[in-house]
Amino acid sequence: MTYCIAVSLKDGLVLTSDSRTNAGIDNVSIYGKMHAFNTNPDRKIVMLSAGNLATTQSVIDQIKRDIKEHAEINLNTVHYLSEAAEYLGRISVEKQRRHTDDGQSSFNPSATFILAGQIAQEPHGAYLVYPEGNCITTSRQTPYLQIGENKYGKPVLDRFLKIDTDLHEAGRCCLISMDSTMRSNASVGAPVELLIYTKDAMKLDEYYCFQEDNEYLIQLRRMWHEKLKEAFATLPQFSKDDAKPLPGCF
Amino acid sequence: MTYCIAVSLKDGLVLTSDSRTNAGIDNVSIYGKMHAFNTNPDRKIVMLSAGNLATTQSVIDQIKRDIKEHAEINLNTVHYLSEAAEYLGRISVEKQRRHTDDGQSSFNPSATFILAGQIAQEPHGAYLVYPEGNCITTSRQTPYLQIGENKYGKPVLDRFLKIDTDLHEAGRCCLISMDSTMRSNASVGAPVELLIYTKDAMKLDEYYCFQEDNEYLIQLRRMWHEKLKEAFATLPQFSKDDAKPLPGCF
Repeated sequence: MTYCIAVSLKDGLVLTSDSRTNAGIDNVSIYGKMHAFNTNPDRKIVMLSAGNLATTQSVIDQIKRDIKEHAEINLNTVHYLSEAAEYLGRISVEKQRRHTDDGQSSFNPSATFILAGQIAQEPHGAYLVYPEGNCITTSRQTPYLQIGENKYGKPVLDRFLKIDTDLHEAGRCCLISMDSTMRSNASVGAPVELLIYTKDAMKLDEYYCFQEDNEYLIQLRRMWHEKLKEAFATLPQFSKDDAKPLPGCF
Repeated sequence: MTYCIAVSLKDGLVLTSDSRTNAGIDNVSIYGKMHAFNTNPDRKIVMLSAGNLATTQSVIDQIKRDIKEHAEINLNTVHYLSEAAEYLGRISVEKQRRHTDDGQSSFNPSATFILAGQIAQEPHGAYLVYPEGNCITTSRQTPYLQIGENKYGKPVLDRFLKIDTDLHEAGRCCLISMDSTMRSNASVGAPVELLIYTKDAMKLDEYYCFQEDNEYLIQLRRMWHEKLKEAFATLPQFSKDDAKPLPGCF
């Protein structure tokens, strides 16, 4: 499994991903899921991936080859992020089809991607590319996208992410969301990669890689747990006076 | 969808369930999912249900008929909760098979149950009965069971439920877990039923039914949100000094 988040805010982008890949519970490896495409100085494009590793790798390979061989459409020639997302969708579908064309196999080569970044003067943004090749972006009301194991870590994103949240605050929110997910799903694991992109900066220089034993991550986890315990202890009690016998007893 | 929790603690049981049933997003109804079987004074047995409503109702009907008609094995004759859970599993499988015997249909009549309570001098407990008819119970380390939409509300249970947690504290924990789930999944909804059973009490008289606009539930939700916001605001910041350029750029 995998867990990746992309947050697109007024001030820029926050991208977070775990690094655990497994082909069965007895075959677990570390693979980063954050991939940067950064050869054209007028654009910064980063991809997050979830799903079949072979599909992911062949998609990345194709993207790189298209750039090198100056294919008509490639990540260095597209004018809009949405165009880049559609291009990624087409490659992804093509790579998946190669392994399912017999229509018989129960084998699932599907992969889901997030493409985020900024192209020239266009606004920064993020797109989620489904295995079917279609895509969605964020909204003012829901400024984030998730791929992989999204449920455990969703409530905290819903609570704290607003369109005008500070980028570093959003980064902490993503780390908390990632921590809740790693606690509940053993197939999501460190190192945790975090990238903060300030809009119009055209730099990918604020990147963090938190290992399992990273001091900051341990402190964040411990403090969040302590604070939640304190918060929980102060909650109002429901009154026994409101209790009644369970109806429908027979 | 549905969300139900059963917590089995040193001091007794805490059961919580939502009340939303849907056959498609355009067909939503209110059905309680907490069912008590309470005609034998030496036992208290409560069932929580998730899944196909027709299967659930025919299972309940069969349980009632078996009691009325004094079937050899029924909820009033079994000696152990595990025996009751196995009996429920058999009925459930039988009811599901009636509607899938052609083996063709993609129709899914499956249902999952939790059976909790106490029989005579036996210890109180809770069992989760899978659609296949097999079942599991709680452990000292994981004193709770969930059915239905279990992911959004799981982190808070993992944080706060210990085997010796006070019953009312566990009740608040379940309400918080339910609230997180209702926020994230529109097919889980009020009223929220909550039952607290003190071990050996042989009474089902501490039952609460919280409607959507219940004052206590609104206050709990608001306070939890405020406290979490306060907690979040105090979290330590990661240092920009640790940032580096994203590797793997090419």
